[in-house]
Amino acid sequence: MCQLLGMNCNVPTDICFSFEGFSARGGKTDHHSDGWGIAFFEGKGCRMFLDDQPSVASPVAEFVRSYPIHSTHVIAHIRKATQGEVALHNCHPFRRELWGKYWVFAHNGNLPDFHPENMGFYQAVGDTDSEKAFCMMLETLRERFPEGEPSIKELYCVLQEITSVIAKLGIFNYLLSDGEHFFAYCSTKLSYIVRQAPFAAAHLIDQDMTVDFREVTTERDRVAVIATTPLTDNEVWTQIQPGELLVFQDGLPLKYTLC
Amino acid sequence: MCQLLGMNCNVPTDICFSFEGFSARGGKTDHHSDGWGIAFFEGKGCRMFLDDQPSVASPVAEFVRSYPIHSTHVIAHIRKATQGEVALHNCHPFRRELWGKYWVFAHNGNLPDFHPENMGFYQAVGDTDSEKAFCMMLETLRERFPEGEPSIKELYCVLQEITSVIAKLGIFNYLLSDGEHFFAYCSTKLSYIVRQAPFAAAHLIDQDMTVDFREVTTERDRVAVIATTPLTDNEVWTQIQPGELLVFQDGLPLKYTLC
Repeated sequence: MCQLLGMNCNVPTDICFSFEGFSARGGKTDHHSDGWGIAFFEGKGCRMFLDDQPSVASPVAEFVRSYPIHSTHVIAHIRKATQGEVALHNCHPFRRELWGKYWVFAHNGNLPDFHPENMGFYQAVGDTDSEKAFCMMLETLRERFPEGEPSIKELYCVLQEITSVIAKLGIFNYLLSDGEHFFAYCSTKLSYIVRQAPFAAAHLIDQDMTVDFREVTTERDRVAVIATTPLTDNEVWTQIQPGELLVFQDGLPLKYTLC
Repeated sequence: MCQLLGMNCNVPTDICFSFEGFSARGGKTDHHSDGWGIAFFEGKGCRMFLDDQPSVASPVAEFVRSYPIHSTHVIAHIRKATQGEVALHNCHPFRRELWGKYWVFAHNGNLPDFHPENMGFYQAVGDTDSEKAFCMMLETLRERFPEGEPSIKELYCVLQEITSVIAKLGIFNYLLSDGEHFFAYCSTKLSYIVRQAPFAAAHLIDQDMTVDFREVTTERDRVAVIATTPLTDNEVWTQIQPGELLVFQDGLPLKYTLC
């Protein structure tokens, strides 16, 4: 299986610290060494870095660790292949366009019983269950809202509906974003932390590295970091409940209850 | 206007030498400093690097210049904005999925009279005429071949048809690839060179830099490089004729004449 890392903030923030610890799990502190990827939204634009090399050994990952890209919506993934060979076309995150926006998706889990028929529009390029699930989600959204983008409430409810169908077929933790909304679904394992004033220092689990956020933030900054398992050992992370779909906005988790 | 660079080869090859000269035109030897981008196909997968900074100053471009990524199909672009602000979402190449493959497109020119209506499926994320033209091309291909991917001959003829319609509305030099086929259309200005045995040394126009290809190739390698204007000053480049659509395969240009 794989691991997920996401970030949602109220001001563009770099993810270097979290990515440093996370990418160590791609072959150093853990065995997720079948590729990795990261997507940064910058306004409507989206920058992606992918590699089928382990993230600890990849020159592209080394570049991402050292070059601070500021973004409000980030999704990253390190892969331990379950379905599909080790190859660039099977690396997450995946990206498609819907309603004139880029949508980015990464999955942790395995859907052994998920064999969707060929869909009307979106087709998977690679061989993973994950990309097929993403295609089905977008296909369903497109069908349900033929007039274009709905309200976040309507979007959330349909997403929850599709998600609960797919999640029955295996393990389906995921992160999904269009650069405006940030969805995080916990099927079995997903945690988050919200950092805001008063900021403190944080120490990574996977590397002996500390950042004092008081030195790099302003009072009004708020940053949510979402990960398969906590990345720091001196902060309190919140575990998302299995079956729960959260929407992060400006670094805060929201949950719509009236679907 | 912008500049295009493409590469098509029979074995995966790095584009570092050509990109070195090309990216110098993004703010040093020429004024195309409103962003840049490059896409590398690796099998069915596709790796893209984009930036809205000038290519001579961009850390991401510095990384691409120094890190040899091997690919058989590469499309690069440096931007001088005509339509659409300087922003990541307006940087070429653009990418969409069609028939379960990634398609990548970059445009040099300007289409002041091109105002397509909202299309059925593909929508532009950014504001450029280029991305809209790309969306219309894919939309037309999808409509014409609802059963899926046609033969290269059929594909070529429909592409030529769409291209001639759009090219009437302005300047429309472009590069397009799905990682298998490589299309190059000359509306006003586009040249190419085929390098094969016996290889020789080549010297860049935009940087004082020479590569002796005898040292880095084998006898069976063949590489076509396509660019808005020649990149080297000691080789003979072939100018593509205005109105001509070429398909490069294994480093050789083909032209279908019986549409």
